[in-house]
Formats: sequence, structure tokens, C-alpha cells
Amino acid sequence: MNHDRAPLFEALQAHRQKHTASYHVPGHKSGRGMMQEERDLFHPILQIDLTEITGLDDLHHPEECIREAQLLAADAFGADETYFLVGGSTAGNLASVLALCGEGDTLIVERGSHKSVMNGLMLAKAKAVFLPQTFEPDVPIPQGPSIEIIRQALEMYPEAKGVLLTAPNYYGYQMDLRRAAELVHTYGKILIVDEAHGAHLGFHGELPPSALSCGADVVIQSTHKMLTAMTMGAMLHVKGKRGLELKDQIKRFLAMLQSSSPSYPIMASLDIARRYIMQQGKDVLEDTLHQIQSFYSKLSKLSVLWHAHSETYKVPGFIDPMKCYIADTTGTLSGHQLRKLLEAEGCIMEMSDASGTLAVFSLCTEEEHLQRLLLNLQQIVEKYGLVKKEVHGPLWNCFTREEQLLPIDMGLASTEAVEIVPLDDAVGCKSADMVIPYPPGIPLWVPGEVITAQSARDLQHWIQQGGHVQGMAGAGLIKVIKR
Amino acid sequence: MNHDRAPLFEALQAHRQKHTASYHVPGHKSGRGMMQEERDLFHPILQIDLTEITGLDDLHHPEECIREAQLLAADAFGADETYFLVGGSTAGNLASVLALCGEGDTLIVERGSHKSVMNGLMLAKAKAVFLPQTFEPDVPIPQGPSIEIIRQALEMYPEAKGVLLTAPNYYGYQMDLRRAAELVHTYGKILIVDEAHGAHLGFHGELPPSALSCGADVVIQSTHKMLTAMTMGAMLHVKGKRGLELKDQIKRFLAMLQSSSPSYPIMASLDIARRYIMQQGKDVLEDTLHQIQSFYSKLSKLSVLWHAHSETYKVPGFIDPMKCYIADTTGTLSGHQLRKLLEAEGCIMEMSDASGTLAVFSLCTEEEHLQRLLLNLQQIVEKYGLVKKEVHGPLWNCFTREEQLLPIDMGLASTEAVEIVPLDDAVGCKSADMVIPYPPGIPLWVPGEVITAQSARDLQHWIQQGGHVQGMAGAGLIKVIKR
Ligand SMILES: Cc1ncc(COP(=O)(O)O)c(C=O)c1O
Ligand SMILES: Cc1ncc(COP(=O)(O)O)c(C=O)c1O
Repeated sequence: MNHDRAPLFEALQAHRQKHTASYHVPGHKSGRGMMQEERDLFHPILQIDLTEITGLDDLHHPEECIREAQLLAADAFGADETYFLVGGSTAGNLASVLALCGEGDTLIVERGSHKSVMNGLMLAKAKAVFLPQTFEPDVPIPQGPSIEIIRQALEMYPEAKGVLLTAPNYYGYQMDLRRAAELVHTYGKILIVDEAHGAHLGFHGELPPSALSCGADVVIQSTHKMLTAMTMGAMLHVKGKRGLELKDQIKRFLAMLQSSSPSYPIMASLDIARRYIMQQGKDVLEDTLHQIQSFYSKLSKLSVLWHAHSETYKVPGFIDPMKCYIADTTGTLSGHQLRKLLEAEGCIMEMSDASGTLAVFSLCTEEEHLQRLLLNLQQIVEKYGLVKKEVHGPLWNCFTREEQLLPIDMGLASTEAVEIVPLDDAVGCKSADMVIPYPPGIPLWVPGEVITAQSARDLQHWIQQGGHVQGMAGAGLIKVIKR
Repeated sequence: MNHDRAPLFEALQAHRQKHTASYHVPGHKSGRGMMQEERDLFHPILQIDLTEITGLDDLHHPEECIREAQLLAADAFGADETYFLVGGSTAGNLASVLALCGEGDTLIVERGSHKSVMNGLMLAKAKAVFLPQTFEPDVPIPQGPSIEIIRQALEMYPEAKGVLLTAPNYYGYQMDLRRAAELVHTYGKILIVDEAHGAHLGFHGELPPSALSCGADVVIQSTHKMLTAMTMGAMLHVKGKRGLELKDQIKRFLAMLQSSSPSYPIMASLDIARRYIMQQGKDVLEDTLHQIQSFYSKLSKLSVLWHAHSETYKVPGFIDPMKCYIADTTGTLSGHQLRKLLEAEGCIMEMSDASGTLAVFSLCTEEEHLQRLLLNLQQIVEKYGLVKKEVHGPLWNCFTREEQLLPIDMGLASTEAVEIVPLDDAVGCKSADMVIPYPPGIPLWVPGEVITAQSARDLQHWIQQGGHVQGMAGAGLIKVIKR
């Protein structure tokens, strides 16, 4: 296929050059109706902020340029079919879960799933069997569920509709997806992979393999996160018999959940992001990865800082070189403090938690910015006199849990009576809402889940350290299902 | 409040001017990673295509610039609280219906509702009581339900959770919302108005009144359609006790349905669209309305063409001057033909159906474009020798129906066994899918609705005339619930 082409972008350009008169939405009519101040930024893109008029196809029923753009994307990413998303991976996750699960159905999902997966289960009123994450001692990032626990879940819940895994996770860790796919298929089930953080995988030998190449049936990618699309631009890929069987239901829910006026700039940005990574972008990626490796070898010299790509602190399994989680092993600076010190120097990080802070690179990361980060880290190490000492206790200090592979009825909260109680009194109750420490946005409790003493203490600790929490019923208050 | 300000846009500008280094998503890092060809269009906006970093607030938890921008919007549109939407009015409709209705609950809705309302009911597994639309003979656009039929529905279904009306409709017709709101409130119910087509209402005396000013409790507006936001930019407003009571549930569903990475360009475009209409835009609107009135008086001279603003064909009630539905009363040219003839001259219309074609103006419509449309219509009338003659039968020739105010279980289709049958055999069955002639995207049948002989004939006729249909199971095939 000809990856020099960008059919959707070209159709928009062609329309623009025709200088037609618009008697249709949007109301801004190619970017009139603006003050001088915003013109420079908005005017160019509004030229192609159009709608489903003749020649521009229809996302919910693609037959022309959007279909062609999706076919090229399927080819580039190794899918049988690809659907452009304008509602982020959120739309893809919601639609996949709703397509697979009706009321009362069971889905095996990772406990560390993004809230969109949990929301999908709640909307479907399905049951979740949660796979616990693995934590190596002294490794401050979670490593996804083990193959063994997935097998256990498949044995215990033969009625499950399928398995949904998140890989790579927010921190760049990718579990062994080949073995996972083999296992799930042995049990005759479908494997959906939330690959929101992995749109770039498979485009270079140094990157982890893509989920599709590992055998996943349905894959959701935030093209905006790790490639170059506009924010909210994402893709859903299906491959093979199981994926294709589910595709009509997925398309149905995508059409229900996404706007009937999908953004053409976002869709076109998916088209040109695909073209870029298939053409020029490959060389840029090669160069950038080279610079990142050199950054890592210099960073490793600051041996007092933990990072996932260091020789000293090797993490088993695949870690995406584009993600760099950094933690102070001396325990002097919390992750939040580290982030704020970097921010004060103009280095804006993706997130921080109690232990460390996360940098997200991409093929577009400039060498100069890698140097700037390194320099600032060096200065922080010096200024705070961080010197190597014995680490007491594991670095990862939040949200331990005893998982039991119990099914949790995600539809429960919408029907049961609820009450609001102080956090201490909530222990032993079932949560009525999702309570989400964020970032990274992975729920601590989902509706219907029992609040253990340990997890309540973990939350208290998180709040004390200044962490944000979504879904509490007020300061120190939790909404629980009435007993 | 100071409507010179645009707090969200300003925060983005301020961030941009700081020249920080990005170690966060999106991957394009302020617009690197593009080919020369797309640079001009995309590069400027990608400067502010950012994410929830310090200083840029969080749509799902607004406390800073997004909150301020929403407060200004609430003031401008006359709401108690306003929420920015990045998933179009679709997101607002889905969230409102889900917030109000759980499984088995009843909602009184207009039969001519947009599919997003129907989809909300299906996701909620709620029951719909459909209000039939009114059709005046010889008026080719539907006029929404009568006050009397709303009263009947409220009497018959005291258990209903509320009423959802669409006003103005796609064709610009606005029912008497003041009386509707009074009536609905008399029965102690909440009134939600899908005002997707009315973001501009209330900003000029010649425009119909806004739903909020008429007493609606929850109002959803596509700011991109009739004001100047980017496509997918929309707002949800709540006002008064009933609206505020529902707001927490609405917010909960908005956070579930919309991306966890909402687009900053779209959000900022809402902020500047509000500023524009409150400042410069008011004068522009005044001028444009003036030009549109002059266009209408010239158009009326082509008396062979029906339009909703003509002296001859006066339609009772409010019609938005921004919407102009044009039909050939001689029956020579169908709406589709008329649209295509105009398109051939570079006049791109919003939609067409069997009877006519719709032009959408806005405050940004240029005088030159009004003249261009008029000229082309004049030429078409001449070229096709359209001369006034007796009209046989009503102009509106599609989708008649006998409505009965029966509740329809919208969750049914997801649980029942289905089969695919030819359209003829489907008569008497319940549809298993939404079947949607589009545009305008108003479902002919929703899941669970009985397919009558008349409506099957109407669909046949629509297809013969070259109309598009979403939701059929193949050419001439319909998915029905097994009997
Ligand atoms: C693992 C994961 N899945 C899905 C999403 C949702 O993607 P989006 O923000 O593109 O809607 C995210 C967002 O952070 C995520 O981290
Ligand atoms: C009446 C009505 N409501 C809601 C919508 C959905 O709005 P949006 O396209 O902004 O998602 C539309 C879109 O055409 C509509 O016509």
C-alpha cells in the first residue's frame, strides 16, 4: 500500500482549495468569528474543521476517504480492520467492553486497568474478575498480572467472556503478551489489549513488540500519546477470527458513544500521524532512540536515582524506552517533590506519585530537552546532597492489596441504597463509587469492592502526602453501599 | 463578570510563552513530527494541544482556569452551572439520559429526537414514551410535539422521570418552550432540552428565546453548530433546583463517557466562542441578521420556492432565521436534486431530503455567500422553468406515523434473540436495531418499536429516492426481534 498518501487529509485539502460557500455547520464557517488574539493559533486548523458534506465521507459509515485512511492505518499497524476514534482510547475501551459484555457477564481484567475499562464494566453492568498486579520488591512500578494468575482466573471462571489486559502500562512495563495471548486462546477466549500507551510499538527493533504482533484480537491505542496525532485521536484495531466476530458490536457502540459530528482535524491528524511514522518518522524515531539511550547511560551515573533502564536496577521484562520513571532511592525527595523541583526549572513531567516521577518521551523529543532534564537532575542530586545509602523497605509504598480473584458486580452501585461515611467507618463496607488516586487514574476501589483496612490506610497515606483523589464524597468521606 | 477574559485560552497562551520542555503527552510535543505539507494547518494549534499539567486544570475536576471559563459561560448563557463538553451534544444527551434514568425507568421524549437521545435510553435500558411531532399540511418541516400531547403523556405516565424535548429542531422550528416548561413543572417533573441547534439563541431579539430563559432545567448546546467553537465543542447548562439536583449524576456520566484526555483546543475554542459572542460577535450577529432578512425578502420573490421565512408560506411559531429549508413547490426538483444542483455551483448545503434542502447560516455567514445562494436559486428556477402551479398533496412526504403514546422498552434489543428478515416480512415485528434515515439522523424505528406497514412503505420510498439509511442489516434487510 502507498503510505505516501493521506486520503482523508488530501480530501480536506482538496475541499479547501475549491473555495465553496458553506451553508452547513460548523458555525465558524472556516474560521471567521474570532478576535485577532486567537487568530494565529486557530485560523489555520479551522479551514479543515468541517462536517460530513459530499466528498468528506462519514466516520460512522465510512465508504470513501475515511475508509481509505483506515485501510492504510490497518496496514501500517498490522490489523485486519482499523477504526479511527475521536474520543480517545476511552471510547475504544468503553465500546470494547460493552460489545463483549452484557448485564451479568464476567470479564477477566487487570486490577490496574484505566478507569475507562471500569466505566465500561459499570455501563454494561458486568462482573469483573480482577487480576492482581505483580510487584517486585524494590521496583517502584507495577508489572501487570502474571501468566499464572491469568491461567487461574481462566480455570476458575470458564464462563468469562474474555480477558482484557493493559500493556504497556502507564510506566512503560509490558508483560509477556505472546504467552498471554496463547494462553487466553487456549481457553477459547478473546484477548483485548488496552495499548493506549503503545501506538509506537513495532516501529523499531528496540521497542517492545506490538500487541497485535503478539496475537491480541482487539487493540486500542491512543495515537495522541505516543505518536503524533492530536489529543483525543486514537485507533481501535481488530485482527483474526475473534476480533472480526466482535467488530460489528464494537462499531455499534462506537457509533453510540462518539459524537455524531466527529472532529475532522482530529481524524485527519490520525491519517497524517500514520503517514509520518511510515515515512520520515521512522528515521526520526531511530535518531531519538539513540539519543535516549545515551541519556540513560548518563542518567545511570546518578546511581542514587532509580530508573527502569539502569544497569543496576534492571527490571525483568520489557520496558518501553520512551517512559522513564525516576525515584530518589535515599528517600529524601518524594516523587511529588522531585516533580515540583523539575517543574520549577521548566521541565514538565507527566506525573508523580509518592515514590517517583514519570517522564514521557516520544519520537519528537528533542536532544536538547534530554540534556536539560539530565542537567536538572544532576543539580538536584547535588543541591540536596543525595548520596547512596541503604534503602529501608520497598520503594513502592502505595496501594498494596490482597487479591482473591473474586467476581465483583460492577452494576451494583447503580441499584443499591448508598450512604456516606467517614473513611475509618468504611472498612468492611462495599464502595459505592470509583475512588481514584490520580494520576495515574487507576481506581483504588470500584463500586461493589470491599474496602479493606490496609487499602483504607493506603488511601489515608496518599492523601497525607498531598496526592489527589477523585470520587470521594467530601474530605475524608466515602460513599458506601448500605449494609 | 468580565467577558473580555478567556481564562482557559489565556492559561494556554501563558504556558506556551514559558517555553518549557515537555516530558509528558501528547507525543507530538507542540507540533514537531509533521511533514511540510500539513505544517501550515496543524502546527499553530498543536502549540496548545496540551494535557492536564500544572496550571492547565482538569476538565473532570475543574478548579482553576477551566472552572473560571465555565463560570463565565454560565453567566453568558444564563445558567447556574455550565460544563464544557468535548464529545459534542452527543456526550451531553447521553449523560443527561443516563443521569435521569436507570433500568426500567420511563422518559417522555420527542419522537424526532436525535439518535444520541435514543442511544442514551438504550444504554440506560430505560423505557421511552414517544411524543409524536406535529405536521401542518403543506409545511414540509416537522414542528415538534404539541403542548396537549405532552400533557396527555404526563397524565398517562405519572411514573415518568421527566421530559426531554428538542428545540429548535434541525429545521430551526422551536416549539413553545415557555408553556412546555410550565406544564412539565406543574407535574413536578424535570425538563431537559436538547438545544444542539440553539447555542446562539438569546443573543439577539430577532432570534427565538433560549431554552434556559424559557425555564428548562438542563440544556445541551452544540456550540460548534450555531456559534464559533471547534467541532465537538459543546456545553451542558443546568439551572434551578431540579437541574442542580441532577448535576452530580450528570457530571459522573460525563466523566465516564468523555476521554480522560480531553482536547484543549476544543475546550479553549468554547472559551473564546463565549468571549466572541459576548463582545465583537454581537455586532457581527446584528449585521448578519440584517443581511439574512434582506436575503429572505429577495428569496420570497421566487415564489415557486417554499421557505420557512416567506410571507406566503408562514409557519406558525418560532423559526430560527439561521435555518433556511427550501423546497420546490412544483414538484419538479426533489430536495436531493436541488442540493446537487447547488453543490455543482459550489454552494454546499447542510442536508437534503425528498422535499427540500436545508441551508444553515450563522453569525459568520458572509453577505457574498447569501448573494451567491440567491443567484444560483434564481438560475435554477429559470433553467428548469419552475412556474407556480397547484400543489397536489402535502409537500412533506416522508415518515408519517400513527403515534400511540405507548412505552417502548429501549433495553430490549440487547437481551432478546434477533433474526434478519426482508423489509416486507418485517411488518408487524419489533425492530432490533435503530434504523436511521440520514440526514437528519432521526431514527425511523428504535429497538423494540413495532414496524408498521406504513412506515415500511415510507422507508422503501426513501431508499428509492436515493436516501441513505443507517442500521439496516444489508440491502432490503432488517434486524428484528424473534417472535
Ligand atoms: C491505560 C490507559 N488506557 C486508556 C486511557 C484513555 O485514553 P484517552 O485518554 O486517549 O481517552 C488511558 C489514559 O490515560 C490510559 O492510561
Ligand atoms: C438535535 C440534535 N441533538 C444532538 C446532536 C448531537 O450533537 P453533536 O453532533 O454536537 O454531538 C445533533 C447533531 O446533529 C442534533 O441534531
